[in-house]
Amino acid sequence: MKKCRFCDSSAIVRLPYANLSLCGEHFKGYYIGRIRRVLDKHKIHGEVLVATSGGKDSMALLHALSEISKVDDRANFTAFHINLGIFDYSRKSEEIVREFSKKLGVVLIVYDLKKEIGYTIPELIRVSKRPPCAVCGIVKRWVLNKVAYECGFDYLATGHNIDDISTILLKALLSQDMYTILRMQSEFSPPRNDIKLVGKIRPQFYLSEMENRLYAELNKIPVIGEDCPLSKGATLHKYRSLWDHILKTNPVSQINFIRSILKLREQMAAFKQPTHLCKKCEFPTESETELCAFCRLIDSAGKRNTETLGLVS
Amino acid sequence: MKKCRFCDSSAIVRLPYANLSLCGEHFKGYYIGRIRRVLDKHKIHGEVLVATSGGKDSMALLHALSEISKVDDRANFTAFHINLGIFDYSRKSEEIVREFSKKLGVVLIVYDLKKEIGYTIPELIRVSKRPPCAVCGIVKRWVLNKVAYECGFDYLATGHNIDDISTILLKALLSQDMYTILRMQSEFSPPRNDIKLVGKIRPQFYLSEMENRLYAELNKIPVIGEDCPLSKGATLHKYRSLWDHILKTNPVSQINFIRSILKLREQMAAFKQPTHLCKKCEFPTESETELCAFCRLIDSAGKRNTETLGLVS
Repeated sequence: MKKCRFCDSSAIVRLPYANLSLCGEHFKGYYIGRIRRVLDKHKIHGEVLVATSGGKDSMALLHALSEISKVDDRANFTAFHINLGIFDYSRKSEEIVREFSKKLGVVLIVYDLKKEIGYTIPELIRVSKRPPCAVCGIVKRWVLNKVAYECGFDYLATGHNIDDISTILLKALLSQDMYTILRMQSEFSPPRNDIKLVGKIRPQFYLSEMENRLYAELNKIPVIGEDCPLSKGATLHKYRSLWDHILKTNPVSQINFIRSILKLREQMAAFKQPTHLCKKCEFPTESETELCAFCRLIDSAGKRNTETLGLVS
Repeated sequence: MKKCRFCDSSAIVRLPYANLSLCGEHFKGYYIGRIRRVLDKHKIHGEVLVATSGGKDSMALLHALSEISKVDDRANFTAFHINLGIFDYSRKSEEIVREFSKKLGVVLIVYDLKKEIGYTIPELIRVSKRPPCAVCGIVKRWVLNKVAYECGFDYLATGHNIDDISTILLKALLSQDMYTILRMQSEFSPPRNDIKLVGKIRPQFYLSEMENRLYAELNKIPVIGEDCPLSKGATLHKYRSLWDHILKTNPVSQINFIRSILKLREQMAAFKQPTHLCKKCEFPTESETELCAFCRLIDSAGKRNTETLGLVS
C-alpha cells in the first residue's frame, strides 16, 4: 500500500475512482468533506430527520452529520428509527440505534410499526404478492415521508449508497423495468408542500458501501452486523457482484453510469412527477389507482386477517 | 449437449436467451427465420444494398438474404464493398467478397476509397485526432449513405450485431457519453428523401456474434478471419468482455438492455434528428457546424497534404 496523499502515514485505503490513497485520519476527513459538500450544494438548512436503520450506511451518516453539526449549526439533525417488527433483528437494530444516538447526543424518534399501523413487516409480507424487500420499501418510504412531513421537518436524509443505487438501476436496465429507471431518485429532491412530500437528501449517493463501512469501522460505530433475515435470496445480490467486474474495467464507471441515467432522465418529457394524493392516507402517490401502494398493502392485510378468522367483512 | 428442440439430432448450440437447443440444420432455419422476420416487420421491399465487409457478420447476412430471395422476391439484394485501403487486409477482404458474391450470384458494387475520394483509411487516420475506428466509422457511414442514395436504393442493410451494439451502449453509459446514447440507431430507420438519408435496416440487430459466426461456419461461408489491424487496442474490447459476466447473471439481459435504452430514448423529447445538409457534400449531418464530420476529415487531409509538400493552398 502506498503513502497517504496528504501525510507521511501509510495509506489504508485506495479509492480508484479518485486515484486517491489515504490514511485513516485523512479518509475520515475526506468522507466528512464529501457529506458536507452535498449539504452545501443543495443548501440544506433547518430541521433534518435522519433515517437510521442501524446498518453501516445510516449509522455512518448519523455520525458524520453529528460531526458536521459540531462546527456548523445551519441544520439540526434528529435521528429516526422504524422498528419493523422483524423478530430479533429489529430488536437488536433498535437497541443499537438507541445507544448510539444517546452517545452522540442526538434526539431519537422511534416508530413502532406494529403499534402505529397494526402490522409488522413479516405480517405484511405474508399478505402481499410482492417480494419481501419491495413490501418493506413501500412501508418505509410511506412512514418516513409521513412522519417527516407531519412533524414539520424540512428534509429527510437517508443512507442510500452508490452500490445500492447503481445495482437497482443496472438490474432495471437489464430487465426492461422502465418504471424503476423513471422514478429513481437523485441526490436531492426539493420539498413539495402542495402534495405533502418532504424534501429528500441522500448525502451518500456517490459514496460506496466500502467507504461507509470503513468510516464506521474507523470511528468504532456500532452497526447491526447481520443482513436482514428476510432479504436472503433477493435477486439484487447477483447484480451487485457485476459491478465488481465493471469497476475493474473502469473505476469511474459507477459514477458515470448513474450520471448518464440522470442526464437521460432530465431529457425526458414524458415522465410525470407524482401529482395527486392517495384518497385514503392523503399522502402523495405515483400510483394510477386512487389508493397508494401502502394503503393497498394495509387494506390487503386487513382483508386477509378477517378472511383467516372466518369473519365476514 | 441436449437433443435439438425440433428433431432427434444432438443439439450443437444452446441459445440461453431463448432457452433453445438446436441441431445445425434447425439452427440454420432458425437464423434465416430471425432475419426474415425483421424484413417482414419493417415491410422491406424493392432494392436493398447490403454493406459487405468480408467479416462474418456481413457475409452471413449476405448469404441469409440470398437464401431468402430464392423463395421470396419482394426485395432485390445487391452487395456493396468498400476497399478501405488498409494494406493486405483490404486486398484480402475485397477478394473474399468478390468470390463469394459471384458464387451466390449476387451483383457486387466495389467502391475503392483511394480512387473515389483520394485517401485510404490509414491516410485519414494519420491526419485526424480521432481514434482509428471512429475515423473509419465516419467514412463508412458517409460512403454507404451516399452510394445507396445516389444509386437509387430503397434501403441499406448492415451487419451490426447485438454484441457490438450493446457494447457501444454500455461503454457510453459507463463514460457519460450521452451523444452516442442519443444517436444510437435501432433495427430500422425509414428513408428521409428530403435530407438525402437512405432507409436503414439492421437484420442482425438482436443476433449475437456467436450466432453469426456459427451460421457462417455451418454454411462454409468464407470470411476474413483476422481482425482489422488498425483496431488493435480499441478500448471497446474490454467492455465487450463485461457482457460475458452479465449474460451469466441473466441471459436475456443484453436484449433487455438495448430495449430499455430504446424505450428511454422514445420518451425523450430533447433529441433532434439530423435536419440539415452539409454545406459541402450536401448530405445530412447531425453536426452543429456547417460541414459534416466526413467533409471536415477530408478537408483536414487536404490541408495536411499540401502542408507536408510545402505548397501554399
